[in-house]
Amino acid sequence: MADIKKTVFSILEKDPKTSEFGWIAMIVNFSIVALVFSNIFAVIIQTEKSIATKYDTFFSLLETVSVVFFTIEYLLRVWISNLHKRFSHVVWGRFKYTLTPIAIVDLLAILPFYLNLLFPIDFRFITILRFFRLLRIFKLRRYSQALNTLWKVIVDKKEELVITFVTILGLLIVSASLMYYIERTSQPELFSSIPATMWWSVSTLTTVGYGDIVPITSFGKLLSACIAMLGIAMFALPAALLSSGFTEQIKKQRIKNTIHTCPHCQGKINGKDLFND
Amino acid sequence: MADIKKTVFSILEKDPKTSEFGWIAMIVNFSIVALVFSNIFAVIIQTEKSIATKYDTFFSLLETVSVVFFTIEYLLRVWISNLHKRFSHVVWGRFKYTLTPIAIVDLLAILPFYLNLLFPIDFRFITILRFFRLLRIFKLRRYSQALNTLWKVIVDKKEELVITFVTILGLLIVSASLMYYIERTSQPELFSSIPATMWWSVSTLTTVGYGDIVPITSFGKLLSACIAMLGIAMFALPAALLSSGFTEQIKKQRIKNTIHTCPHCQGKINGKDLFND
Amino acid sequence: MADIKKTVFSILEKDPKTSEFGWIAMIVNFSIVALVFSNIFAVIIQTEKSIATKYDTFFSLLETVSVVFFTIEYLLRVWISNLHKRFSHVVWGRFKYTLTPIAIVDLLAILPFYLNLLFPIDFRFITILRFFRLLRIFKLRRYSQALNTLWKVIVDKKEELVITFVTILGLLIVSASLMYYIERTSQPELFSSIPATMWWSVSTLTTVGYGDIVPITSFGKLLSACIAMLGIAMFALPAALLSSGFTEQIKKQRIKNTIHTCPHCQGKINGKDLFND
Amino acid sequence: MADIKKTVFSILEKDPKTSEFGWIAMIVNFSIVALVFSNIFAVIIQTEKSIATKYDTFFSLLETVSVVFFTIEYLLRVWISNLHKRFSHVVWGRFKYTLTPIAIVDLLAILPFYLNLLFPIDFRFITILRFFRLLRIFKLRRYSQALNTLWKVIVDKKEELVITFVTILGLLIVSASLMYYIERTSQPELFSSIPATMWWSVSTLTTVGYGDIVPITSFGKLLSACIAMLGIAMFALPAALLSSGFTEQIKKQRIKNTIHTCPHCQGKINGKDLFND
Repeated sequence: MADIKKTVFSILEKDPKTSEFGWIAMIVNFSIVALVFSNIFAVIIQTEKSIATKYDTFFSLLETVSVVFFTIEYLLRVWISNLHKRFSHVVWGRFKYTLTPIAIVDLLAILPFYLNLLFPIDFRFITILRFFRLLRIFKLRRYSQALNTLWKVIVDKKEELVITFVTILGLLIVSASLMYYIERTSQPELFSSIPATMWWSVSTLTTVGYGDIVPITSFGKLLSACIAMLGIAMFALPAALLSSGFTEQIKKQRIKNTIHTCPHCQGKINGKDLFND
Repeated sequence: MADIKKTVFSILEKDPKTSEFGWIAMIVNFSIVALVFSNIFAVIIQTEKSIATKYDTFFSLLETVSVVFFTIEYLLRVWISNLHKRFSHVVWGRFKYTLTPIAIVDLLAILPFYLNLLFPIDFRFITILRFFRLLRIFKLRRYSQALNTLWKVIVDKKEELVITFVTILGLLIVSASLMYYIERTSQPELFSSIPATMWWSVSTLTTVGYGDIVPITSFGKLLSACIAMLGIAMFALPAALLSSGFTEQIKKQRIKNTIHTCPHCQGKINGKDLFND
Repeated sequence: MADIKKTVFSILEKDPKTSEFGWIAMIVNFSIVALVFSNIFAVIIQTEKSIATKYDTFFSLLETVSVVFFTIEYLLRVWISNLHKRFSHVVWGRFKYTLTPIAIVDLLAILPFYLNLLFPIDFRFITILRFFRLLRIFKLRRYSQALNTLWKVIVDKKEELVITFVTILGLLIVSASLMYYIERTSQPELFSSIPATMWWSVSTLTTVGYGDIVPITSFGKLLSACIAMLGIAMFALPAALLSSGFTEQIKKQRIKNTIHTCPHCQGKINGKDLFND
Repeated sequence: MADIKKTVFSILEKDPKTSEFGWIAMIVNFSIVALVFSNIFAVIIQTEKSIATKYDTFFSLLETVSVVFFTIEYLLRVWISNLHKRFSHVVWGRFKYTLTPIAIVDLLAILPFYLNLLFPIDFRFITILRFFRLLRIFKLRRYSQALNTLWKVIVDKKEELVITFVTILGLLIVSASLMYYIERTSQPELFSSIPATMWWSVSTLTTVGYGDIVPITSFGKLLSACIAMLGIAMFALPAALLSSGFTEQIKKQRIKNTIHTCPHCQGKINGKDLFND
């Protein structure tokens, strides 16, 4: 039993690259990703009435197969969870595991089906949450490291990004207020209030430009031109901030991984020792 | 009295993180931010006629409460302002304080209300200036440092940004002139003059593309395509400029200011020695 | 014969800069590029019915000349291919050469014409594949090096780019699902299903904003504003990633490869020593 | 006479910062910039018929004043041009000066007026060329240095930018061809030929999205979504390229301006000596 448990553990929880049952792990991982995508696709396509009724049996089958597969997978993961050091206690460890974000996501992926059996309400929409099951992909070592870098850079530039965001918000409010006073006489239905004008502000500052609300007065067009120009800067700032963040992060990583010489004692210092403090 | 003054000073003017009345300071700061946002929201939403009449009493109450709060805050800040070294003189120091940008913004936030009492004209719109009171947030140390970095980078790249801006202006003028001569025969109402055609130029170069003014001749479309392409470059240049500016700035600042400890001799190593460039 | 073969080889396969028949090679290369562009232009312009019928003889002539030129070139290249070390065998080497991607592209460029002679079906569209013949330009040393750098950077940032792409996909799906439930009651024809709403998602997130599908409810507009804002971040992330990738790549390559001469001792200094990081 | 000549020279041709008649030079420079802007503004605004007729006398006056001013300036510049070492010969030097790009632009700025006097044709449009007179601003030292850096970076990344451009061109052609075959049956007037479809390609890839030509079939929308996504990458690539280019340029500049130690002889090497080779 303990042997089976360990085998299941190394298939489900270890990196396919290093695990001894790597190829089974690969197949399992691939099946999960494929099933998740099929399910998302099904939920999306089922909102198209004509298709939903035509392929109804197929979608029911896919749903049942997925839920069975995900339920087995979920139960197996709970069963083997106490092989993790963090969740080593037989009962409490497993309970603690079920409260981890990834386990909750796993549960949410199967729950709508069972709730649907008990109560005849349509929980199908919640199935879209299965998209988050794709977060599992990021557990693969290389991806989780890349995600980590992305996250570190964003946290590192938090303050600058907040300032950029507040500036954008301020620009939206000020430009909408100005435009409202400029355009309300010539287009009273479209620029009926500042909140209504905000729709124009967002559309212009983000350079989306749907074209459903456009100034027609000369001053309105001038203001619009200025805001669209500032929109360019609003693209440039976050790009520049994140860019320098990545460069910095890479430099830190490199310094961590190289050996330096102490200018005082000429001893060799591992870069890691300098950055752990 | 002097004790109360000092207490008020440390609550209103010091960094909540280091002040001994930190938690009161936090509450006060939070109240200011919350009130400012409520006021901005109120001014914006009041332009929606139906809501303005329905919740009239509520908006009046909010206005009165805000003004009372901001007036007390303003008077307190003026009172304690001579505890700052720069404004130490009892009368002139306080007068000089009232002329600082942030004190003027504070005054502008309450003035419309009192002017409204004296003269029955609608000054309510000026209340939108309360948005600038949010600048106070940036007085928090970490944010003000980030803002500083942003500012330094922009100043550092001033010349390049001016050249980019002049190039954009030139492109707008030249493309509008060309387009005017290309399209005026086929769409005389839309491309009626160069200033009218500028609206198309801006819309295309910033990639907003409202769609209310679009060339229909082949040459017009060709020119439009070229300008839209150049629009990509116009996004790339400021992003690239600011990006290298940040990288440079960070290099100058942060790294040089970190002191590491050698694990062998415990000697202090200047970050500069590690990043020597 | 061997001499002619070598001459042909040095004209067709060597870098015009170093080859002894450089100027002939330049003419040949230029002719290929010019012919390819003429052909692409012809295929594109021929879809315009009026022009196609008017200049029919001219297009036929261009087609025949191009095919004759490209056929001769292809045969010459196959003939001389065994002068490459990789394809040295008289028969098998040449056969292996015909299976290289660039040789297949060369074949595809002439095949439609001959197939058209045998079977009276219109293969003309395949001629658009001639565009890929332009890949030959990238064989020029400097361009192929630049392409190499571009490629290395993209491969280097593979994981981060995949994460960005998955995030974009997730945003598209989640925003489309939300928008579908918000707007379906007020605009049932446009927001008829999640797949139909995806069209709005893409249009907004990429800031294209055609304007053929736009939310009209307040919540819809709010969601649209948020997605458009996130669109800015979606532009910033890949730009920042690639930017830091290029900086890194350049650091690795160019600088380390430059050797400088000390003006005092004439000793060779590796660029690495100057840029030591 | 020689004294007056030298005074005029130091006013017109020297950097206002270092010239002894700096304040006159500043006034002259400012007048030129102001006049150029007034002229551009006049040419643009005159295309608006109603304004043109109303302020006709004013525009005539401005035109005459400008031309007189620019003519005097041009003649003075030609007169003093032989104080430059490059143009030292009394006759041929001055002739050579009139052939420099900036002198030609100066001439083009006044020529339309005199041609108009001789021949009663409207040369007024050429006056828009006065915009290029603003290039004079860039002669100011700091700006010319910044422009130089911009130029160097673009030249440095020439190959990569060409590849990006060719890729964009390829994407435009391939996507237009595909879209033409997808949409021509359902929207035969809009997607009438590949060149007509190119208008959609450009509009989508640059994320302009006018909305005058939009696919309506499912496959067309899917292709459109893919192209819009690739549009993001097309923004990211040049931004990233230029960004790394600037970083590199700054590094080179810094290395040039610092003193290095030769690893062989320990002699001090001026960075400049290393980069002059």
